[in-house]
Amino acid sequence: MTYSVEWIDNKLQLLDQSRLPHEERYDMLTTVAEVADAIRTMKVRGAPAIGVAAAYGVVLAARQSERADTEARTQTIVAAIEELETTRPTAVNLFSALNRMRAALARPEPADITSRLMDEAVRIHDDEKKATTAMSTYGASLVPEGATVLTHCNAGAIATAAHGTALGVIIHAYRMGRVKRVIATETRPLLQGARLTVWELVQEGIPTTLITDSMVGHVMHTQAVDCVIVGADRIASNGDVANKIGTYGIAVLAHAHHVPFYVAAPFSTIDMGISDGGQIPIEQRRVDEVTSFGGQPVAAGGSDVLNPSFDVTPNSYVTSIITERGILSSPYLSRLKTMVENHDGKGG
Amino acid sequence: MTYSVEWIDNKLQLLDQSRLPHEERYDMLTTVAEVADAIRTMKVRGAPAIGVAAAYGVVLAARQSERADTEARTQTIVAAIEELETTRPTAVNLFSALNRMRAALARPEPADITSRLMDEAVRIHDDEKKATTAMSTYGASLVPEGATVLTHCNAGAIATAAHGTALGVIIHAYRMGRVKRVIATETRPLLQGARLTVWELVQEGIPTTLITDSMVGHVMHTQAVDCVIVGADRIASNGDVANKIGTYGIAVLAHAHHVPFYVAAPFSTIDMGISDGGQIPIEQRRVDEVTSFGGQPVAAGGSDVLNPSFDVTPNSYVTSIITERGILSSPYLSRLKTMVENHDGKGG
Repeated sequence: MTYSVEWIDNKLQLLDQSRLPHEERYDMLTTVAEVADAIRTMKVRGAPAIGVAAAYGVVLAARQSERADTEARTQTIVAAIEELETTRPTAVNLFSALNRMRAALARPEPADITSRLMDEAVRIHDDEKKATTAMSTYGASLVPEGATVLTHCNAGAIATAAHGTALGVIIHAYRMGRVKRVIATETRPLLQGARLTVWELVQEGIPTTLITDSMVGHVMHTQAVDCVIVGADRIASNGDVANKIGTYGIAVLAHAHHVPFYVAAPFSTIDMGISDGGQIPIEQRRVDEVTSFGGQPVAAGGSDVLNPSFDVTPNSYVTSIITERGILSSPYLSRLKTMVENHDGKGG
Repeated sequence: MTYSVEWIDNKLQLLDQSRLPHEERYDMLTTVAEVADAIRTMKVRGAPAIGVAAAYGVVLAARQSERADTEARTQTIVAAIEELETTRPTAVNLFSALNRMRAALARPEPADITSRLMDEAVRIHDDEKKATTAMSTYGASLVPEGATVLTHCNAGAIATAAHGTALGVIIHAYRMGRVKRVIATETRPLLQGARLTVWELVQEGIPTTLITDSMVGHVMHTQAVDCVIVGADRIASNGDVANKIGTYGIAVLAHAHHVPFYVAAPFSTIDMGISDGGQIPIEQRRVDEVTSFGGQPVAAGGSDVLNPSFDVTPNSYVTSIITERGILSSPYLSRLKTMVENHDGKGG
């Protein structure tokens, strides 16, 4: 398969997710400005994929500045990192990837700056790939035989530059014979569920049912939903989860129907620097995403419009968090700390 | 103002709600087939408006058959009633209005069949008008000073052929100075909130905020929502409420946030013949309402699609039901029975 984010021939190849499913177009980016624009306009989206794309964006900045002296180059690359940090505020993978690139820039070895940054970008990409593979194995163990699984938005291969977080788990569980059907919410306003998740699941041959976001309660009430699995854009140290707008409502409905609610996310999504979800900045996007549909204006004029791209699900609604280091349940703070310490202790 | 359903010059004038807000077009219908089609395609929608339109549809059948003998006319009119009964299954007002027309047809007076049916259709229309006026007054008393009120779908003037049920209450409360802001959900798939509710509220000068259906949880969590007021398509004798798909999810979120959840509906919406919401037939509409928009496909192909038009909110989530005879709270069964008996006892 072709991944949504690939480094090919010294260029960043991105699958333009905004054109799916109607057109499967790959763009070849050569400048950091193009990468920043692709993140802002959600041509590349999904927390892990954004992080990987941004890392390669820094490599492009290094390549663009190869004729300058070291000091000028360093300034250019730092400016590129800072520019990329402004593209989207919520997904923490962006910031963790850029912090790793900043640290790589500061290291002495290898002497060639481009190689140094390239090595780190590839490591970030590899880490995400390995994380999704490990997560899929851990997470599939939570899915019961013959399960109907509900997911929201798109946390698939194209969102992760690898095998997918929530969809990685679901696809792995399907291959093990455990998943009977996936229910995918369309995910207004940008329809990542209808456009991307259905596209990925149908390619895998998985029986899929598309619903509007408003049908989750009815579906849980009238048919058996065995679990919900979603991704995350940032997880606070107490286990509060920021994810695509609508996730919180699904978590409350899952709770009311005694349906387990799982979040699949790599450690790059976990922000141990904040104590709870109230500290996660929530991106407000352009209101015409809401007032128009597929480019056509649909709403009556004259009202205010909200377009928060994410919401926060309190940890009390999260049954478990599936990571590449294992499955965590409440109390999240102590368990996340232990997992971070064990991992750091191993020098990993 | 011009109402959405009016009898003018021996024709049924309908505001084509499917074209709003882009075009305010009124169609003049002269045949029962046109009325049935308008109900099926949701040119006229909203439980009370459907009932009134259907009643006038029976009058059109009587007018169309004026040259036939009484037996043939009666057959034609009964067939028209039966045809209209097949148009939409959930809103009970359709059936209660058509039952009234059937009873009028069976009465001996006045001798002229068209006059008899016309008189009853006008009474049904008047009853809905009076009901919404009374409901507005009762319901506004529930709205606290400076309230932010959330509503779903459209239960406004255009849905009721009168002053609106949920929106009637909200507009009355606004005129009393009690409403600071209304939050309107867009209401996928047909966007009655974005197209119709925003259109009506902005015309009234009421500060309105449009959100996607998926934002309700986030809005309740991050800002004060003082109450939810929605309409209903059918209420079972135990107080379970069928209303536009998504209502149930909003009710669960309201419960989780301790926000009162009110249903404004005339007695014509209450079906004392069924014991609970599990007996309410839920209309399944065409899946292209979900997979395409304005004729343009938006979803990836290859999946199943659900499109239930309504869901059922269990009575335990309903704080109160606002009717034209007063405000009811749990236990609904005994209180609804008492209200029906008192009303029937008054010969009303």
